[in-house]
Amino acid sequence: MDQQKSDIAVIGMAVMGQNLALNMESKGFKVSVYNRTSEKTKRFVEERAKNKNIKGTYSIEELVNSLKTPRKIILMVKAGKPVDDVIEELLPYLNEEDIIIDGGNSFYKDTDRRYEELHKKGIRFLGTGISGGEYGALHGPSIMPGGDESAYEEVKNILEATAAQTEDGPCVTYLGPKSSGHYVKMVHNGIEYAIMELIAETYDIMRKVLKMTPLDMSEVFKEWNEEHKSYLMEITYKILEWKDEETGQPIVDIILDSAKQKGTGKWSVQDSLDLNISIPTINAALNARTLSSIKDERMRIGEIYETPIEMNLDESFINSLRDALYISTIIAYAEGMKLLQVASKEYTYNLDLSEVARIWEDGCIIRSAFLKPIQRTFKNDPNLVNLIISDEFKSDFKEKIPKLREVVSQIKKAGIPISALSSALDYFDGLSSKELPANLIQAQRDYFGAHTYERRDKEGIFHTEWQDIHNI
Amino acid sequence: MDQQKSDIAVIGMAVMGQNLALNMESKGFKVSVYNRTSEKTKRFVEERAKNKNIKGTYSIEELVNSLKTPRKIILMVKAGKPVDDVIEELLPYLNEEDIIIDGGNSFYKDTDRRYEELHKKGIRFLGTGISGGEYGALHGPSIMPGGDESAYEEVKNILEATAAQTEDGPCVTYLGPKSSGHYVKMVHNGIEYAIMELIAETYDIMRKVLKMTPLDMSEVFKEWNEEHKSYLMEITYKILEWKDEETGQPIVDIILDSAKQKGTGKWSVQDSLDLNISIPTINAALNARTLSSIKDERMRIGEIYETPIEMNLDESFINSLRDALYISTIIAYAEGMKLLQVASKEYTYNLDLSEVARIWEDGCIIRSAFLKPIQRTFKNDPNLVNLIISDEFKSDFKEKIPKLREVVSQIKKAGIPISALSSALDYFDGLSSKELPANLIQAQRDYFGAHTYERRDKEGIFHTEWQDIHNI
Repeated sequence: MDQQKSDIAVIGMAVMGQNLALNMESKGFKVSVYNRTSEKTKRFVEERAKNKNIKGTYSIEELVNSLKTPRKIILMVKAGKPVDDVIEELLPYLNEEDIIIDGGNSFYKDTDRRYEELHKKGIRFLGTGISGGEYGALHGPSIMPGGDESAYEEVKNILEATAAQTEDGPCVTYLGPKSSGHYVKMVHNGIEYAIMELIAETYDIMRKVLKMTPLDMSEVFKEWNEEHKSYLMEITYKILEWKDEETGQPIVDIILDSAKQKGTGKWSVQDSLDLNISIPTINAALNARTLSSIKDERMRIGEIYETPIEMNLDESFINSLRDALYISTIIAYAEGMKLLQVASKEYTYNLDLSEVARIWEDGCIIRSAFLKPIQRTFKNDPNLVNLIISDEFKSDFKEKIPKLREVVSQIKKAGIPISALSSALDYFDGLSSKELPANLIQAQRDYFGAHTYERRDKEGIFHTEWQDIHNI
Repeated sequence: MDQQKSDIAVIGMAVMGQNLALNMESKGFKVSVYNRTSEKTKRFVEERAKNKNIKGTYSIEELVNSLKTPRKIILMVKAGKPVDDVIEELLPYLNEEDIIIDGGNSFYKDTDRRYEELHKKGIRFLGTGISGGEYGALHGPSIMPGGDESAYEEVKNILEATAAQTEDGPCVTYLGPKSSGHYVKMVHNGIEYAIMELIAETYDIMRKVLKMTPLDMSEVFKEWNEEHKSYLMEITYKILEWKDEETGQPIVDIILDSAKQKGTGKWSVQDSLDLNISIPTINAALNARTLSSIKDERMRIGEIYETPIEMNLDESFINSLRDALYISTIIAYAEGMKLLQVASKEYTYNLDLSEVARIWEDGCIIRSAFLKPIQRTFKNDPNLVNLIISDEFKSDFKEKIPKLREVVSQIKKAGIPISALSSALDYFDGLSSKELPANLIQAQRDYFGAHTYERRDKEGIFHTEWQDIHNI
């Protein structure tokens, strides 16, 4: 029996936890694992972890005692109450300076609370986003840790070895204090929602308007991905060529068009509202999932109103579509980076946005060729007002916004909902509008509620006596 | 000196509170008033309330002692901490069965908390939305009370006399338990945001594309309002013909295009996300205010990218615009009613949506000719899946959605952000789409995260082994 203590522990033996443990072990670290249901641990240790330097443990006490001090324990359990439960179980066995790493998609305010509670007890906490799905967890994810900086120094060598590797270094860095890691992961997922929806709307146009088959589309996305080098586009063309085993049909034609969502996308939008930051493409992506989920209602309403128009589009339309997807994808990143920029100030995360872009270069779900120019942009100018005016992208915007405009304008005629594409365009148009009609809104607000307004011609706060309220 | 006790009290002597007190007094009730700053009370009593049956009081104790029992006290103070502060000050002087009415725009979760806390102390609480602005408060607002039903019975005669009067009765009713009153008011304000933004976008098209003057526009809105009979459209045409005293210019041209927002619009959107309900037009209206508020950023970005196109539109375009605004306004109501329908179940408010529409018929900011058919709709079918398929509006949708489509498609070419008009169209198109591209999104989610999917051809939850995860 191997009496050597483990370097690190993983709690939670769902696939992500298993893969992360295997990944770390493959980099030369000894890993203890634990799962509430012992059976899962046992099966893992006997099968996937067989003959590896991985120790199954069957009680929290055994787990904790199997670790070198200061102990390093990664939680890979469901966000929410399970995280609190595990922490509570752990506490009686931990010593000061021990380190807990929450690797799930926890809500950032929960992370702040846990950080404070654990800090009082002398336990060091790292709220850590991990992106890359099952494959990434095994082969190198993007890791987004925030919280106790001294704790990061203690686990740095393990995380760096475990993360995806790029020519710019491993896809992990200490992001900042408190919940900064989980906040960055939340925004990552918001951007992920947007890119997925933009691709899905493009697919919808291809099948409904251009009448392309899944195989046709797969080829087109594959070709486009030579520019994007995007993981999400890569899996898209792989999905589109995939045949359902049972029916032999393209699998996309078999899957029901009713999408689920988890917390992170929603939280991104809700928090952007609290911060008064506009992220309409991410927002539209979330809304599209919501609408998709009420399939029954759509079937009923779709019986009453038919979708309008068969369109005859020029052959070059597919190229406009390519450019529209390209530029709206950059807008999705722009919205996310803006949210991070503002949140970083508001929550004193002190984020280095170029480092955020760097650790997203590989391993994570939104990795693509866009991250390098985004990284360069924020390296040169951390306070850049918006990515859409970055020198890296300016010529893309000048060239491709007219194509996005063409696509949105044409497809709106066809009755196909393209709320993400269209919101991306509205975001661009809104940001580049020196004049918006909010002057009328301010007049209305002042009219009915005396909410006052500002003037263009002088400083100050003004109110008009629209109705002589004292004498009516 | 009049020793007769007062029927009701108003705390908070800002204009809304003053006007509400004057309104109630004019209906034959004796009203005590109080304000934290005595000076305000004094001035009110000596000026606007002079020779009226209104008693100024200068301490909470004096206020409470001036009232008949059970005491009825309306708070007209700023939402948030001030409400808690006033309640805390009141408590030592109140008896069981006394009634507190919070008439501000309180967040509904605060109202639930206050209801519970006061209930334990035997104090009856009515969280009550009041809409109508300063004018409505004085001449008859729409009043939306929720909470303790027995308390409503005690104040019913006062509220009914105070509210706006219609042929269908006074614009007040007991809406339901707990925070239902403030929730209904919150959604009212969400709809208000949407209608204001839809009008503002229409105005923006009129000035930027159709090159109309404010006076031209005023005439057009006035004409359109013969159909809408909408308060917001009425104040719009009054604003558009209003001249700034100082410059003699149309006042809209003087007011800065940077809109403010308060809590209720934001809460509507945040709560719709928690309930997984789509309200994209309301959402877009909120976002438009956010974008408007960063005027400096827009000025900088607007220097880099110029807005594209001079358009030559057919003369009939103004009629399409009329129909687009008409139908998107109905969509704004549809989104709000849907949110209320779902919230009513989720929060067990047991709302009667036809009664909600009825009490919005007059007095409130979103009153218009649409409320009567909305009322009839939900009277006939309280569980109607969506207002857009109401028999009252079906022919409108068939006739006018193509016009909205035309407007959105044309104006998207012109680089004018019209996110509310365009979101209204996307909402309609999404709801009437039997097929959405969420099948691809579900495939992507299953690919990278094993999130599973449903199939079209059989029941169950499925997962594809896209990558043989155990052997890579």
